[in-house]
Amino acid sequence: MPEQEQITAQAGDVAMLVGTDRRRQIIRLTPGQVLQTHRGMLAHSDLIGLPWGSRVVSHLSASFLLLPPSIHDLVLHLQRTTQIVYPKEAGYLLLKMDIGPGTQVLEAGTGSGGLTLMLAHAVQPHGRVYSYEQRADIQRLAQKNLEKAGLQDVVEFKLRDIAAGFDEQNVPALFLDLPSPWDYLPQAQAALAGGGHFGAILPTTNQVEQLLAELERHDFGMLEVEEIMLRPYKAVPARLRPMDRMIAHTGYLIFARKIIPDCSSVVKTARAGQAD
Amino acid sequence: MPEQEQITAQAGDVAMLVGTDRRRQIIRLTPGQVLQTHRGMLAHSDLIGLPWGSRVVSHLSASFLLLPPSIHDLVLHLQRTTQIVYPKEAGYLLLKMDIGPGTQVLEAGTGSGGLTLMLAHAVQPHGRVYSYEQRADIQRLAQKNLEKAGLQDVVEFKLRDIAAGFDEQNVPALFLDLPSPWDYLPQAQAALAGGGHFGAILPTTNQVEQLLAELERHDFGMLEVEEIMLRPYKAVPARLRPMDRMIAHTGYLIFARKIIPDCSSVVKTARAGQAD
Amino acid sequence: MPEQEQITAQAGDVAMLVGTDRRRQIIRLTPGQVLQTHRGMLAHSDLIGLPWGSRVVSHLSASFLLLPPSIHDLVLHLQRTTQIVYPKEAGYLLLKMDIGPGTQVLEAGTGSGGLTLMLAHAVQPHGRVYSYEQRADIQRLAQKNLEKAGLQDVVEFKLRDIAAGFDEQNVPALFLDLPSPWDYLPQAQAALAGGGHFGAILPTTNQVEQLLAELERHDFGMLEVEEIMLRPYKAVPARLRPMDRMIAHTGYLIFARKIIPDCSSVVKTARAGQAD
Amino acid sequence: MPEQEQITAQAGDVAMLVGTDRRRQIIRLTPGQVLQTHRGMLAHSDLIGLPWGSRVVSHLSASFLLLPPSIHDLVLHLQRTTQIVYPKEAGYLLLKMDIGPGTQVLEAGTGSGGLTLMLAHAVQPHGRVYSYEQRADIQRLAQKNLEKAGLQDVVEFKLRDIAAGFDEQNVPALFLDLPSPWDYLPQAQAALAGGGHFGAILPTTNQVEQLLAELERHDFGMLEVEEIMLRPYKAVPARLRPMDRMIAHTGYLIFARKIIPDCSSVVKTARAGQAD
Repeated sequence: MPEQEQITAQAGDVAMLVGTDRRRQIIRLTPGQVLQTHRGMLAHSDLIGLPWGSRVVSHLSASFLLLPPSIHDLVLHLQRTTQIVYPKEAGYLLLKMDIGPGTQVLEAGTGSGGLTLMLAHAVQPHGRVYSYEQRADIQRLAQKNLEKAGLQDVVEFKLRDIAAGFDEQNVPALFLDLPSPWDYLPQAQAALAGGGHFGAILPTTNQVEQLLAELERHDFGMLEVEEIMLRPYKAVPARLRPMDRMIAHTGYLIFARKIIPDCSSVVKTARAGQAD
Repeated sequence: MPEQEQITAQAGDVAMLVGTDRRRQIIRLTPGQVLQTHRGMLAHSDLIGLPWGSRVVSHLSASFLLLPPSIHDLVLHLQRTTQIVYPKEAGYLLLKMDIGPGTQVLEAGTGSGGLTLMLAHAVQPHGRVYSYEQRADIQRLAQKNLEKAGLQDVVEFKLRDIAAGFDEQNVPALFLDLPSPWDYLPQAQAALAGGGHFGAILPTTNQVEQLLAELERHDFGMLEVEEIMLRPYKAVPARLRPMDRMIAHTGYLIFARKIIPDCSSVVKTARAGQAD
Repeated sequence: MPEQEQITAQAGDVAMLVGTDRRRQIIRLTPGQVLQTHRGMLAHSDLIGLPWGSRVVSHLSASFLLLPPSIHDLVLHLQRTTQIVYPKEAGYLLLKMDIGPGTQVLEAGTGSGGLTLMLAHAVQPHGRVYSYEQRADIQRLAQKNLEKAGLQDVVEFKLRDIAAGFDEQNVPALFLDLPSPWDYLPQAQAALAGGGHFGAILPTTNQVEQLLAELERHDFGMLEVEEIMLRPYKAVPARLRPMDRMIAHTGYLIFARKIIPDCSSVVKTARAGQAD
Repeated sequence: MPEQEQITAQAGDVAMLVGTDRRRQIIRLTPGQVLQTHRGMLAHSDLIGLPWGSRVVSHLSASFLLLPPSIHDLVLHLQRTTQIVYPKEAGYLLLKMDIGPGTQVLEAGTGSGGLTLMLAHAVQPHGRVYSYEQRADIQRLAQKNLEKAGLQDVVEFKLRDIAAGFDEQNVPALFLDLPSPWDYLPQAQAALAGGGHFGAILPTTNQVEQLLAELERHDFGMLEVEEIMLRPYKAVPARLRPMDRMIAHTGYLIFARKIIPDCSSVVKTARAGQAD
């Protein structure tokens, strides 16, 4: 966390430059390099040594803010070839699935690594993200995105089909970001700890219905379906109003918990009855 | 996180019992104690040793699931005398304000400790939450809630008016959950690091307008106002539909970042121009 | 419309009394009768002759407003045994389905008559609502509700199963408020004019999917699915904010238009080509 | 309503051509004219005489549906230079403000005539819309839009500042679509009947707060603020899902009713008390 240990931007730091039009560019500060913006150039060496939060101007006199990017900024600006899970959903599922510092979490597929990044950020430094992906090119993109954020050591990337099952067992949380998660429920059951958290995100209602039906058949309980909607406002004090347009849909979140199918665990607490 | 290290519920663990009607009760497993539910009793000692995720039945033959509660469960079921920040907002602001393992974060007021709990969960074990509150009775309630979750050591509780300023300096994130946050912006500026994250939650549009106006006057930049809405569904595969009613409003989230007011930091990157 | 022709409430008028807690009671002003409220009594003869918009007080000194009820008020306060279509959806579908003064419109089932009332209000005096229902008791309730509003002459109530088809042909608009509207699409096709408007409301996504699939198979075009959400605010100028809770779901609206299946009407406009 | 009286499109009818991409063009069928689309041409005379709901193909073999446009279609495709009130809000306010066949309704300002069109459609043929506008060019545009829909005779257009007051008295409904409606509340009071419906639409929360405060000072009661949100879905049976983006805000609807300020009308219904 650069902003906690130091007051000024240093060579090697990841920095974000924000124009007055709110356009953001994220760079690694490197002496000798020059940032090209649509409103002029900024020399990295002029930025190095400045306090975070400074206003700087380009050679065309356009004003920029020099800021450390948040994990939210990094996710929205990572390089992607696939649809990503957005912070509005990710923040919620982290709490819902009890993912925090030290958690071991399974994810499939990796995709461009948006959710991987937020999982890694949440469980670092002692937790671990096991992230499965079938396509090598997509996995490489995710790896690059994690490296840019300096979180690559928290993630174990695996390149293979999850139909053969996961390597891990007894994990407390598992998230499937796949078109047909119902195909992998036995594998998910085998990997999850008893009471462990299952999560998925799906764009269509047909998929949600199918997943719910299969979850019921595979010893999952406490099924929940939720949507998170983010409504942005124009932050002008004298003319406060919602933005004209918003993202109306990214996906339905589905949550469930692994139930122990063994009937022998259905213990009637007889002594409680005796105490009556 | 008990579910990561062990497969069965142990004496001393925090456990959640969920009825078929989804009612939840959270207890600390203590040999000799008996849980009273509206559908019969369960002896703690009958639960100890069972695998997490087991189905158990009360002496009245009602079925319950034995689960480790998530941080989400703990927040929704903590004892409260004040309105709390909900997980849907908290999860989002953690990412937006870059709060993760190791972060130092300031909070005022503490209230019943709902947000405090989620902040502590996110920054543990090496981060720290500095939480200010003026009322001793409310602070004590929050402390009890943090203790139940075993997170009290991550929080430094402070009992005083923040009008006199915060003890901390150079913190990367500060959240105000107060009726008039605009009264404390100089104090927030003094505590925040350059580029640091300011956050607040307010129920009325009038308050949002006033805060935005004052943020602009106090060297804050990148003002944002957002609402997070959660739409729950009935998770029935053959009859999927949104719930009839939902929580329509908890509060508007306001975000900003501390800008360095010193004009000397507005450096025109001349060398960039020369390199042109 | 009593409020247009007269300034004061007259015997025989439908009147609404609204308490300071916004509770509404709708009565027909009848000399000699007394309105019982939970905050005291009001004699009808004391109300007769008063200007609409007057404040009156009960014998217990509680204040009430004397108002002519709107069609919106009538719908929300009609006697019901079934789920009704709400004004937020009805107002939209009237415009979408081009229902206005003079329109002939088909409806099935009648239910408690909420939508029937709004259709009748919109097409009066020269239009006509043909409303089908299978259950005599429900039809009688709807008839009573229409009579209270004085709109019974605009509606032709029919008591029978629509599986046998509708009596009408060439109608411009037809609305199905039934659990399985897909069962009646041939009947709907037979009743609708070419290009005519088909509408339905359904609570679950499974039903919407099934209806869409069947509409495609039955020569309907321009399929649309929409949800209308109403977000109410606390109308307090110094503390403006959304209500804490809202109705999150009443139903999905499905719209389509009847396409002429006869292929002979697919005329390539050759002369246009020649004019090129 | 052409679709009620005839089965085929006639010369002089207003017709809508809809491409497979859902693009709509609205024309008046005129022998000899040719419709230019981005997918080829269609001769009007080839369309005249075809049944409504027919599929036609352009000289480039692109397919189009021939439909009578609904009032909803007309509003969304009218020529505009100003922001219009959308059908989702208009349909609701018609019911809320009790506007139907025969109603006399006041409107200011006219703007491009979107709401005027929907008001005229709802009150025709015996009701009347009195529509005030200050700018002649905008009024002319609205007049042209009403003429295209054949509803110009239902509207009385007035070109002047409403600060001088309205010509009408005792109207049951009055709608202000102006940036500062609070400036005209005495004029609105003078024009409205007792108990009459006041409505307004405003984009910012600041405006809503100011209007509410002034309504309270000017003898209006039953203040309400509501938002109507429309969420469109992709109507594909096997992949049902909300559209990715939606219109998040058009305006806040404010409703109120005129209260008779004269205290003499506060009659304690003594006889009710005596009957006790």
